[in-house]
Amino acid sequence: MSPEQTAEIESLRAESRPTLRATVPALEAMLHTALPVLDHGFVRVIDYMGDDAAIVQAARVSYGRGTRKVSEDTGLIRYLMRHRHSTPFEMCEIKYHIKLPIFVARQWIRHRTANVNEYSARYSILDREFYLPAPQHLAAQSSSNRQGRGEVLEGDQAEAVLDLLRQDAVRCYDHYAEMINEGEGADPSRPGLARELARMNLTLNTYTQWYWKADLHNLLHFLALRIDPHAQYEIRVYAEAMLQTVRAWVPAACAAFEDYRVGAFTLSATMLSVVRRMLAGETVEQAASGLSKREFAELMTTLGWA
Amino acid sequence: MSPEQTAEIESLRAESRPTLRATVPALEAMLHTALPVLDHGFVRVIDYMGDDAAIVQAARVSYGRGTRKVSEDTGLIRYLMRHRHSTPFEMCEIKYHIKLPIFVARQWIRHRTANVNEYSARYSILDREFYLPAPQHLAAQSSSNRQGRGEVLEGDQAEAVLDLLRQDAVRCYDHYAEMINEGEGADPSRPGLARELARMNLTLNTYTQWYWKADLHNLLHFLALRIDPHAQYEIRVYAEAMLQTVRAWVPAACAAFEDYRVGAFTLSATMLSVVRRMLAGETVEQAASGLSKREFAELMTTLGWA
Amino acid sequence: MSPEQTAEIESLRAESRPTLRATVPALEAMLHTALPVLDHGFVRVIDYMGDDAAIVQAARVSYGRGTRKVSEDTGLIRYLMRHRHSTPFEMCEIKYHIKLPIFVARQWIRHRTANVNEYSARYSILDREFYLPAPQHLAAQSSSNRQGRGEVLEGDQAEAVLDLLRQDAVRCYDHYAEMINEGEGADPSRPGLARELARMNLTLNTYTQWYWKADLHNLLHFLALRIDPHAQYEIRVYAEAMLQTVRAWVPAACAAFEDYRVGAFTLSATMLSVVRRMLAGETVEQAASGLSKREFAELMTTLGWA
Amino acid sequence: MSPEQTAEIESLRAESRPTLRATVPALEAMLHTALPVLDHGFVRVIDYMGDDAAIVQAARVSYGRGTRKVSEDTGLIRYLMRHRHSTPFEMCEIKYHIKLPIFVARQWIRHRTANVNEYSARYSILDREFYLPAPQHLAAQSSSNRQGRGEVLEGDQAEAVLDLLRQDAVRCYDHYAEMINEGEGADPSRPGLARELARMNLTLNTYTQWYWKADLHNLLHFLALRIDPHAQYEIRVYAEAMLQTVRAWVPAACAAFEDYRVGAFTLSATMLSVVRRMLAGETVEQAASGLSKREFAELMTTLGWA
Repeated sequence: MSPEQTAEIESLRAESRPTLRATVPALEAMLHTALPVLDHGFVRVIDYMGDDAAIVQAARVSYGRGTRKVSEDTGLIRYLMRHRHSTPFEMCEIKYHIKLPIFVARQWIRHRTANVNEYSARYSILDREFYLPAPQHLAAQSSSNRQGRGEVLEGDQAEAVLDLLRQDAVRCYDHYAEMINEGEGADPSRPGLARELARMNLTLNTYTQWYWKADLHNLLHFLALRIDPHAQYEIRVYAEAMLQTVRAWVPAACAAFEDYRVGAFTLSATMLSVVRRMLAGETVEQAASGLSKREFAELMTTLGWA
Repeated sequence: MSPEQTAEIESLRAESRPTLRATVPALEAMLHTALPVLDHGFVRVIDYMGDDAAIVQAARVSYGRGTRKVSEDTGLIRYLMRHRHSTPFEMCEIKYHIKLPIFVARQWIRHRTANVNEYSARYSILDREFYLPAPQHLAAQSSSNRQGRGEVLEGDQAEAVLDLLRQDAVRCYDHYAEMINEGEGADPSRPGLARELARMNLTLNTYTQWYWKADLHNLLHFLALRIDPHAQYEIRVYAEAMLQTVRAWVPAACAAFEDYRVGAFTLSATMLSVVRRMLAGETVEQAASGLSKREFAELMTTLGWA
Repeated sequence: MSPEQTAEIESLRAESRPTLRATVPALEAMLHTALPVLDHGFVRVIDYMGDDAAIVQAARVSYGRGTRKVSEDTGLIRYLMRHRHSTPFEMCEIKYHIKLPIFVARQWIRHRTANVNEYSARYSILDREFYLPAPQHLAAQSSSNRQGRGEVLEGDQAEAVLDLLRQDAVRCYDHYAEMINEGEGADPSRPGLARELARMNLTLNTYTQWYWKADLHNLLHFLALRIDPHAQYEIRVYAEAMLQTVRAWVPAACAAFEDYRVGAFTLSATMLSVVRRMLAGETVEQAASGLSKREFAELMTTLGWA
Repeated sequence: MSPEQTAEIESLRAESRPTLRATVPALEAMLHTALPVLDHGFVRVIDYMGDDAAIVQAARVSYGRGTRKVSEDTGLIRYLMRHRHSTPFEMCEIKYHIKLPIFVARQWIRHRTANVNEYSARYSILDREFYLPAPQHLAAQSSSNRQGRGEVLEGDQAEAVLDLLRQDAVRCYDHYAEMINEGEGADPSRPGLARELARMNLTLNTYTQWYWKADLHNLLHFLALRIDPHAQYEIRVYAEAMLQTVRAWVPAACAAFEDYRVGAFTLSATMLSVVRRMLAGETVEQAASGLSKREFAELMTTLGWA
């Protein structure tokens, strides 16, 4: 955060205004402030609309008089989450300001159901900031899992990798700046390369930033996929920071989400028949389970049986 | 509006709370209150997020330093609207509560880029309210235009039509209530038909209601199509009521919308060549214009030439 | 089906053309023909794009060299379905022609991720066809379940309901035709009411029709929700007819769908802990389960324990 | 194109199969083959669904009997395009295989209404191929236009820029390969860095590839934005290659698109009043036009008046 940005956030937090809309004090308490992520990234909530009660209100217009017992709000939210009645959750909306490495942004943008305005390197000049993994995240390719990470690299090997990443990012950025030839230190005797071309020289760990706005249903879908242990660490930490903000914003919906999505496990029809046989006292071997080795192993681990 | 609903709106308008979010006093002034539409319908803004400044802020993160002159906010919004840079407008969101006849709801729902929770006749019982056109809107089929209205029906003919509409709606509703057999006057000696079946007996002018939430870009697209003189009167009046709320909410964006969309006219390549020839002093006849009769006539009318 | 439509289908089925695209003989065998649904409705596949191999091809461009063992196509499709890697399924597309009652169309259209062209009663005149439930589907409102059906109505009661439904639909349609005053038997001495107005007099069991096109991922999501026993019978029968076409089209994807979605059950975090305790030999009572009565009962039923 | 890929394309083009679906011989003629774009990129149509007649068929189900004159198909398509009746165009679908630099892919993916499967550098290893601009496209930053290109760089300056781009891309790729440490020449004595991390060292001109599938309406919207002279050259050439395929596929829709979109100009309400005054013989100065200098200049250029 630059001193300018810090001052801007303080100024935004200093001006309170009256509204007739629903407000959430716990989210107001963190509004505008930045939650740090990775070495130079952050997540900031900059606006929101609705709260747990807005979900209930929408469900009640759908389901009518039968849902009008005030004491049951949390139960109704749990019911909606469990039965995947997703439209009431779409009535809440949140807007973030996020700073993230380009290779993370490339994964993230595949979620199409959000509104995005990204900093444009066609119009503007990117800052000289790159993601460099902390030593404990510098992992080898997993030998068993095509998309996973294995052991952490150590000693000289780790140092060699970090040196390459740092040197290449710095050199590419400096050449980018040299080609653009603008601002302090520019050489007035030669034209600068168009920014829209020069940017192609940057490495994928360069930081970018964007405004990202989504409704609660689509946000939770994004978080479910990206909080998963199979998600890449560098995007998972953003999802975890965002989950904190969701807990402050819609505590009942977030608790239902953690029970019915994050901590849940879906039994396929075949898995279900295996569980039934086990509960009936049978010892089920993988060969006779109808499941593949991988599925059988995952089921047994989930059931605490392995 | 029932006395209960009026009381609820008054209570919502009585509680002001502090927020660190952007607020729009002109929209707060109409928040929760109902704008009447047709004979029993209404439009109410019940929540919103963002303002004209949020559009500018989003554009600036995209286009960067070059856009940071405070004096140019309105100009920037006009530039965005004109060049169809739609993503900054997606940063604003608004939520309505709307009561409308089912045949209007069927047109409306074809706009897919909104969040909707509709009152469910599967779970609940619909009210005994139907749309009946005012005499001046009871039009004959247009003889020239397959989708349009012609002359207004008069005298006995109008009366006959209104009688049929009213009697059929009332009779169908009363039979619906009789089949459901619930509430006051129910006959405990016989079971009621499932609501999800009984509803099929209702006519398409029965009123329903929903919460409808959209971002500003998609809302303006909806309004552009439904404010158009070719849109059916019964949906156009909803669009007009909503346009009033947009004017209060984002005055700069709304003015740009009215200049570049509502009052605009798109010249096709062929039309453009006709206009150039006319400006060069040529008298262009339809036969030599490359345009169909209908297109030529529309162009001449638009240019004030016919 | 009118004789004209039958002739059109025969003519479409008579013309075979060569293509370099993927084809699916089992689906070609049913292409254009109508599967009857309800009393006057149908489902017809009229075009398609892709097959099981297109899903595999898309997954392989994503996951690269590691997926190139031909023998594993079915396994790869199962893996994708299980881990909700949905984008490869989006590479297949199918287009249906569907005839359905308006109240079913109103539920269906809430699925926003499809392309739709519906017959317009603003431009054209609807046919005189209504849905009337068969006696075995004329159910009372469930007393335990707000959205469900209970016992089937019998004897005089059933007859009385069917009479009301039939008479109201017929009378409303006939008045609609009288107001429009077009075609055979029209009275030339008076103008007809605009079609866009007259349609409001129709009942919700009137049949409409549309072209509906979706990708396989979104189609399966639709089917999962509408094949469910909690879905209303009148939409479930459409989903079942469509599932038959999917089995012919993409047999491997459809089998994976039936195992991992249709026949699956999701254990929440709390349910999972109950299952673990049961497998460890503990007898778990509802009161000590952390589950609500309804959830506990559903879990026990699913596990074959009740 | 590798010899393997060429062989695969030949094999795909050798197998013709019978189908009862609509086929388009002009598009079949180019199916599977690659249209070269930039130095290493390409565009290939690999599947399609529908044709001009499918647009007409969908419009006819919407607009009914009134549209059934065979001779008017082209006129109907022009009418739909002009009045932005977009749903009939959504009934056609096309799937491309595209190879493109990452910085182009980043612009492209902002169009959310398509289905995409991209080659994953998390699972697989990218090829050693980078985009290097041809000399005539190596442009300086425009001095007047923040997003545009100015003069072409020449002589030593051009050479210096190209050297930097080439050397940095090559060096970053070689370090990426060294960190991954797989395949031929790998050092078995040390572990390789996880692919999902190593990829961050690549520059943004590295080539990637994807399958990209869209309906005709959304494809035309994409093309309208990216064929525009203000679009960056490196994405415009992809749009131009795709436009060729659309011309072969749906010639009537494509001609309407070129008349009503590509060659069209939208007059704002203010511009329209200026044109009317000019046609009435008035000489309108910018100061009295109500338009900004930029808008006035653009209008005059478009009208052939400047």
